[in-house]
Amino acid sequence: MRTHENLLSIFALGGINEIGKNMYVLQYSDDIVIIDCGGKFPDESLLGIDLIIPDLTYLEENKEKIRALIVTHGHEDHIGGIPYFLKKLNVPIYSTHFTLGLIELKLEEHRLIRDTKLVTIDSESKLNFGKIHVSFFKVSHSIPDCLGIVFHTPEGNVVHTGDFKFDLTPANHQSPDIHKMAEIGKEGVLVLISESTNAERTGLSPSEQMVGNHMNEAFMKAEGKIFVSTFASNINRVQQVVDAAIKTKRKLSLLGRSMVNVVSVAIERGYLTLPEGMIVEAHEVDKMSPEKVVILCTGSQGEPMAALGRLATGNYRDVSIYPGDTVILAASPIPGNEKDVSRIIDHLFELGANVIYGSGSTTGMHVSGHGYQEDLKLMLTLMKPTYFIPIHGEYRMLYHHRMLAESVGVKKENTFIIKNGDVVDIENSIANQTRNIPAGDTYVDGISVGDVGAIVLRDRKQLSEDGMLVIVLTLSKLERKIISGPDTISRGFMYVRDSDDHLREINTIVKKTVKELNEENIRQWNVMKQKIRKSVGQYVFTHTKRKPMILPIIIEI
Amino acid sequence: MRTHENLLSIFALGGINEIGKNMYVLQYSDDIVIIDCGGKFPDESLLGIDLIIPDLTYLEENKEKIRALIVTHGHEDHIGGIPYFLKKLNVPIYSTHFTLGLIELKLEEHRLIRDTKLVTIDSESKLNFGKIHVSFFKVSHSIPDCLGIVFHTPEGNVVHTGDFKFDLTPANHQSPDIHKMAEIGKEGVLVLISESTNAERTGLSPSEQMVGNHMNEAFMKAEGKIFVSTFASNINRVQQVVDAAIKTKRKLSLLGRSMVNVVSVAIERGYLTLPEGMIVEAHEVDKMSPEKVVILCTGSQGEPMAALGRLATGNYRDVSIYPGDTVILAASPIPGNEKDVSRIIDHLFELGANVIYGSGSTTGMHVSGHGYQEDLKLMLTLMKPTYFIPIHGEYRMLYHHRMLAESVGVKKENTFIIKNGDVVDIENSIANQTRNIPAGDTYVDGISVGDVGAIVLRDRKQLSEDGMLVIVLTLSKLERKIISGPDTISRGFMYVRDSDDHLREINTIVKKTVKELNEENIRQWNVMKQKIRKSVGQYVFTHTKRKPMILPIIIEI
Repeated sequence: MRTHENLLSIFALGGINEIGKNMYVLQYSDDIVIIDCGGKFPDESLLGIDLIIPDLTYLEENKEKIRALIVTHGHEDHIGGIPYFLKKLNVPIYSTHFTLGLIELKLEEHRLIRDTKLVTIDSESKLNFGKIHVSFFKVSHSIPDCLGIVFHTPEGNVVHTGDFKFDLTPANHQSPDIHKMAEIGKEGVLVLISESTNAERTGLSPSEQMVGNHMNEAFMKAEGKIFVSTFASNINRVQQVVDAAIKTKRKLSLLGRSMVNVVSVAIERGYLTLPEGMIVEAHEVDKMSPEKVVILCTGSQGEPMAALGRLATGNYRDVSIYPGDTVILAASPIPGNEKDVSRIIDHLFELGANVIYGSGSTTGMHVSGHGYQEDLKLMLTLMKPTYFIPIHGEYRMLYHHRMLAESVGVKKENTFIIKNGDVVDIENSIANQTRNIPAGDTYVDGISVGDVGAIVLRDRKQLSEDGMLVIVLTLSKLERKIISGPDTISRGFMYVRDSDDHLREINTIVKKTVKELNEENIRQWNVMKQKIRKSVGQYVFTHTKRKPMILPIIIEI
Repeated sequence: MRTHENLLSIFALGGINEIGKNMYVLQYSDDIVIIDCGGKFPDESLLGIDLIIPDLTYLEENKEKIRALIVTHGHEDHIGGIPYFLKKLNVPIYSTHFTLGLIELKLEEHRLIRDTKLVTIDSESKLNFGKIHVSFFKVSHSIPDCLGIVFHTPEGNVVHTGDFKFDLTPANHQSPDIHKMAEIGKEGVLVLISESTNAERTGLSPSEQMVGNHMNEAFMKAEGKIFVSTFASNINRVQQVVDAAIKTKRKLSLLGRSMVNVVSVAIERGYLTLPEGMIVEAHEVDKMSPEKVVILCTGSQGEPMAALGRLATGNYRDVSIYPGDTVILAASPIPGNEKDVSRIIDHLFELGANVIYGSGSTTGMHVSGHGYQEDLKLMLTLMKPTYFIPIHGEYRMLYHHRMLAESVGVKKENTFIIKNGDVVDIENSIANQTRNIPAGDTYVDGISVGDVGAIVLRDRKQLSEDGMLVIVLTLSKLERKIISGPDTISRGFMYVRDSDDHLREINTIVKKTVKELNEENIRQWNVMKQKIRKSVGQYVFTHTKRKPMILPIIIEI
């Protein structure tokens, strides 16, 4: 790799061609600043994997150059990888008061809080890391205290938007710093790095105010208990629930661990305003008059073990849903969760609840936190960048975002649609993308990170589809006579009742195979096992059309 | 069970609280008529299951009473279970010319064609099964030749709508028989059984004509090759592709087995009109001028091994997508398939294709085949039923459908929201739901049907998440001394490189456990295995946070 002297480099270690595990890096000479460290939830093909985090190889190899991890906001896809990151790299973390509150919850769980340096900043802070000078601006999003970042470098200014929308009537005064953004643009932006989540959606994203209005209407009409499920971190929405509850003289109860934790952080740190004595414990709810209480609960993504999932199946200890109660789903299903969410809606209707869901403009209880096409164009227009790097999206979103940039005057050849690991190098204010560094998915499975490879996943897949057959056989060392077995044990294959005949037949096949091997004087274990796998596999597939894993175990005595 | 003499009974064996495996049954005295026999695709929790079909217990117990299987149309959720049904019950099948064509494809594959009686009917046919007289009416849907059914019984008339929408400008003259429906309603309908798929969607479903218009516009603009992916069975849409191709002087190529098979059936049977010589073979496509060809392909649901999936990753042998080609996704993702479809769209954009997707009103290339709320209200209004049974939907859809019925005058207490297996009995024109018969999911796995039970699935789940540890140990019969082993073999657990230390430690734990068992003089195998599982399980969970299946195998010699 060439020397980094006076070179400005920008790359992603996660967040490109995916929604999740956001991690972006800016390096000038020998100073590295990291932006965000997110996690991503695995899809169902990654059997048994708990979380995916970015590949940290490059950072580990350059750890003496890392000056800071700056976190734009507290969503999982921006902070979920932090505990695993800190176990390898002890880097100071800079973020806002609320975001650090959420990070602290994570660090406590992983017992990392004592050894980590956390620095509280706000949109007026200025930081210096070598020749990189950093300032900030406020953006609105579906969580409080979100930052956009300006990196002032000798090559020029680089702006990272964080996740944003332009909500001019947000809850809780979380207005975007439009004047400041205009100034930044006027000063000159060499590179704009901007999020692309909703680049396919036309128009301007609707305001959180719409949710507030619909929430008030629904609360006015409701006669029984009201349940509202949303992301705990969407404190602005929680505030609107609180406000609607105050107006209709209802107390508030919180169900679900993350709801209790995050709301506590928000209250402690001053991001949520509610009158004293408003919160009641879960076990008091069923003793109260139903029209006197609203229950905020986790589980808006259809998770069967979260509060709403358990309420829907009547499995929540302290609280029940009765006919006439109202349930509001104030969140949209994340792609992949649609079926789980629908299942819960079905259960709620079966319980006789009045269920309000969907994001229509007449009753919708959810708006996206990510700007639509007109929001993205406004950001591009304000910043007037020379170069543009769309981030935080699948390829089709980056592609549409590039078209938006072109439509407001960014030269087509000045937009870089990169991959994770592709490095955009800037020297003498000219940007090029010619090299790349290691990037990819690191799997977290249990307490170990990165040790689940392709073979383990391939085995899990085979086991998951047709189970396994373990064939145990003891042979005498010299004459290769069968002393014990063969015994075939199956798991995940088929009913024992139905498979008995097959298992007997398999044992016969194994005996025959061993006899043939003896006749051919083949004694290598690998060859013997291979032959057994083949002959048994053929029999099994012919008779059951299944391909279980076949594991021959030969013991010599 | 009480006698069936003069009793009219209606029930579902599938299709309620689900989308899939539709099967409805009408019984009068000792005559049973079955409507549809669908399959359902399993979700990812049913590891290794290929297909789900209805539980046929009741029908097998009453097989001498079954007179007919009438099939309303040829979609998988209405015909997918037929081969498995026929293997147990040899019942004559009545359906339209096109639907029987699709059923024949299935029966050929399962070698059932010779022994099955297939009877071609149309909307003018009249059938008699005991005291049940059957007539039909045409409905429009996203496949040709769809039927609604009228059962004239001594108790009154029962109408089953099949799947339908009111499309007044359909392709291929598949107009609904509105006049006939009005007559049926005028004659009097005791029970209406109507599908509920889109009962949550407001308004009237858009016409297939919209797709035709957008298709023509896109074909006019396209410069390179055009790829269109849709359900093969949506012959009306295929016809619109053919028409747009003729207008723009393009030939047609078909990719994917089901596209070739189903289009052949449609042409042979007269449901698709195209000029001679229009179809070109796949291997000729890349030799043709790109603006002279359109390729119809399977894979609109994101299936990675279907034609579009392989084209998107550059793995289709004969045909490639080049920059400037147009790809039209003329289908919506079925819930659960969104992520797979998105992945393919990303790949197509990366190849430089102009991708047209989504179902907006300006460029949308898909309309639903199922009626929206106004369609459903029109059917209810035409039929004016005394009793109403909403079918073909999840609970929330049935619930909304009941509200629609109420809104047009069906008494609330006269709507039966049933479950699969719930029987609605009608005697002296009074309907009651008090009893039920066996109903549920039967799993097809490989060639066997119904033998995959809860234990097998539970084992597959455990194996899929954390793999397994097989611990083999040979003991002497008398002294219980360890002769060989313990040896621990892992699959799907963790990298061998990382697990070596763990496996050694596990062997030590097993030795220690055997020693303790000997000291306590415990010789029962079950107890020994249980102890080994427990001690090893504790160690593994503490050190890896995983819970692999632990399978101790003890051999006595």
